Amino acid sequence: MIRTLAVVGTGLIGTSVALAAARRGVTVHLLDADAAAVRTAELLGAGTAQPPGEPVDLAVLAVPPSKVADVLSEQQARGLARSYTDVAGVKAGPEREVLARAPRPTHFVGGHPMAGRERSGPLAARPDLFQDRVWVLTPSRLTSKPAFDRALDLIALCGGVPAVMQSAAHDETVALTSHAPHLMASLVAARLGGRSPGTALLVGQGFRDATRIARGEARLWTDIIETNAAEVASVLTALQTDLTELLTAVRDLSARDPRNRTRSRRDLTGLLERGIAALEALPAPACGPRAAGTAHVDVTVAGRPGELARLLDTAAGYGAGPDTVAAPVAPHGPDGPLVIRFELAPAEADALAGQLASAGWDVGRGDGAPAGAARPDGVRDGTEPALAGAPG
Amino acid sequence: MIRTLAVVGTGLIGTSVALAAARRGVTVHLLDADAAAVRTAELLGAGTAQPPGEPVDLAVLAVPPSKVADVLSEQQARGLARSYTDVAGVKAGPEREVLARAPRPTHFVGGHPMAGRERSGPLAARPDLFQDRVWVLTPSRLTSKPAFDRALDLIALCGGVPAVMQSAAHDETVALTSHAPHLMASLVAARLGGRSPGTALLVGQGFRDATRIARGEARLWTDIIETNAAEVASVLTALQTDLTELLTAVRDLSARDPRNRTRSRRDLTGLLERGIAALEALPAPACGPRAAGTAHVDVTVAGRPGELARLLDTAAGYGAGPDTVAAPVAPHGPDGPLVIRFELAPAEADALAGQLASAGWDVGRGDGAPAGAARPDGVRDGTEPALAGAPG
Repeated sequence: MIRTLAVVGTGLIGTSVALAAARRGVTVHLLDADAAAVRTAELLGAGTAQPPGEPVDLAVLAVPPSKVADVLSEQQARGLARSYTDVAGVKAGPEREVLARAPRPTHFVGGHPMAGRERSGPLAARPDLFQDRVWVLTPSRLTSKPAFDRALDLIALCGGVPAVMQSAAHDETVALTSHAPHLMASLVAARLGGRSPGTALLVGQGFRDATRIARGEARLWTDIIETNAAEVASVLTALQTDLTELLTAVRDLSARDPRNRTRSRRDLTGLLERGIAALEALPAPACGPRAAGTAHVDVTVAGRPGELARLLDTAAGYGAGPDTVAAPVAPHGPDGPLVIRFELAPAEADALAGQLASAGWDVGRGDGAPAGAARPDGVRDGTEPALAGAPG
Repeated sequence: MIRTLAVVGTGLIGTSVALAAARRGVTVHLLDADAAAVRTAELLGAGTAQPPGEPVDLAVLAVPPSKVADVLSEQQARGLARSYTDVAGVKAGPEREVLARAPRPTHFVGGHPMAGRERSGPLAARPDLFQDRVWVLTPSRLTSKPAFDRALDLIALCGGVPAVMQSAAHDETVALTSHAPHLMASLVAARLGGRSPGTALLVGQGFRDATRIARGEARLWTDIIETNAAEVASVLTALQTDLTELLTAVRDLSARDPRNRTRSRRDLTGLLERGIAALEALPAPACGPRAAGTAHVDVTVAGRPGELARLLDTAAGYGAGPDTVAAPVAPHGPDGPLVIRFELAPAEADALAGQLASAGWDVGRGDGAPAGAARPDGVRDGTEPALAGAPG
């Protein structure tokens, strides 16, 4: 167990780690070159700015990737802690440097919690920032068992979900899932620069969401991209090829040449569909919609206008919100009844079916076939519905 | 005033318009080739599936951009309505087609509400979808005053904010703010396809936000991009040039050639900073943070760990949440007091300052200089703070 912790770098991530540990009774020592950052973290209750009298159990280096090996070497020379981990978003380069020059590389294990916020700095810190988030550890060939175990203890203190990868595999993947997407968002955002004020009228929520990551601190992100430059270049090269193909299709469509139209349209739709398929293949976030959806309840609705709105309200009151509702089916045309399907976990489906039936709704149950339409999301593929059956 | 409305196309947007109008007492007639979509909208209370007995005041064509002129021609031939508008995301091509072949182009005005959702279809519809959202009208050289005024009435019924643009200017802008960003997000998302399941471990919220727009219906978006292909190609060409420059810098950094490092790093940071600057220049969304922030309140915090957390809780209780707090300043080092600045509208700043002072906090007020640090967000640049002054 960890009784004493040092956090070097009291920004968003470091202070959040400190807050989580302090709440669990760990004595936390805060270090940062920025006096305001340390003072803020201390006044937030994240720990003390006083240095420890003896080596702490674990030190968390919450510094940019290019600084990890230097800070580790410096703190190991001072004897800050018995073991060390970091939280940088790039792992292979820092690991190489640690192996090359840290005094005791066995006492270090690389780490990367998959959590962050649009805002930076200690004031944005939250003790629950890592709750249910993946936290990757990347032990080197020299990492000792005690150093690894203390990092696992820290992840448990913070409520994170531990995962283990090799540093190179980590970096190849985050180039694809984080670093290149960040740069693409920056390219899109930067194109807005210097445009007339009227442009902002046509900036909707989609653009804001798509470019939110590009708001990250420029210096930190320069450091991250530089430290992972080879992997990032490889993803950007592939994206450049894809963009060239896309541009060919869009230019052809713009030229309105009927000879190329079918092919260009197919290429464009194909790209859009590959994007959708890749996103739908991602597991839902832990607390997101349909995370546990493996059963369904079909309700037949007829009668007055407004009847469907009443059903949706009732179901939402029983915990089946809008995200559990699939596209409706009208098996007998626009004047016939409508079948509404709720998709949720088997136990919840059971409860919902009972509640709706008691409330007088026409609820279809059983192990039969789906309600009459192919489901575009494929949630049901290859699984046995616990509740099914189309009424009528 | 609009007493009777027809909605052609009961998807997300059409049904939302219908719901908003029906709630305001308008008689709404719903038309769609998809029986389930019409029945769903009707059962939601969006109107009736019965056709109108005589021409309605206004018909809203909620169909893909390439269908607008055909559907308008067909419905004008049938005498569905006295005037018409549409809601498509591309305006110049449809306008050209309407002028070329609609029976009565004077009775039509193009429209584009800047609202949407990740989900599609009538079940995702909401009567408040357009509340406080910009709704652009693009009158053609033939649009009559009555047709324009009826579209304005519809926007008012839906709670939208009317704006007027020429169709060509609209399309040039949305290529930049919507269509090209969508395609870039699709490119990024599609790169994930076929990767190992472990990849998903490293997909965080940033990636999900950045690619959310790419989940839009592939056929609808193919239609949108094709209808605006020339403008989209122009933006994509510029992005390709930007990407090539970025790739040069990242490859140089990857090669670790010290001769190019300074320049490459500067190019990379420059891109990131241009992206941030463009995003910060956008006005905050209507209900977003700091929308009305033109004044500040400085509070000096000292004493026990946890004191700052208590201040933030107190301020949040008075309506000054985390988004109103700027980066703290420690003017006298890590052992001295900390100055916390709240940024909000003048009237709110005044109230907050009074409330915090009454609660015993050390509140600085006045018209003096900022609290001691340059604000990275530039919110204050060129404006006179109504409340300011650094204590101590």
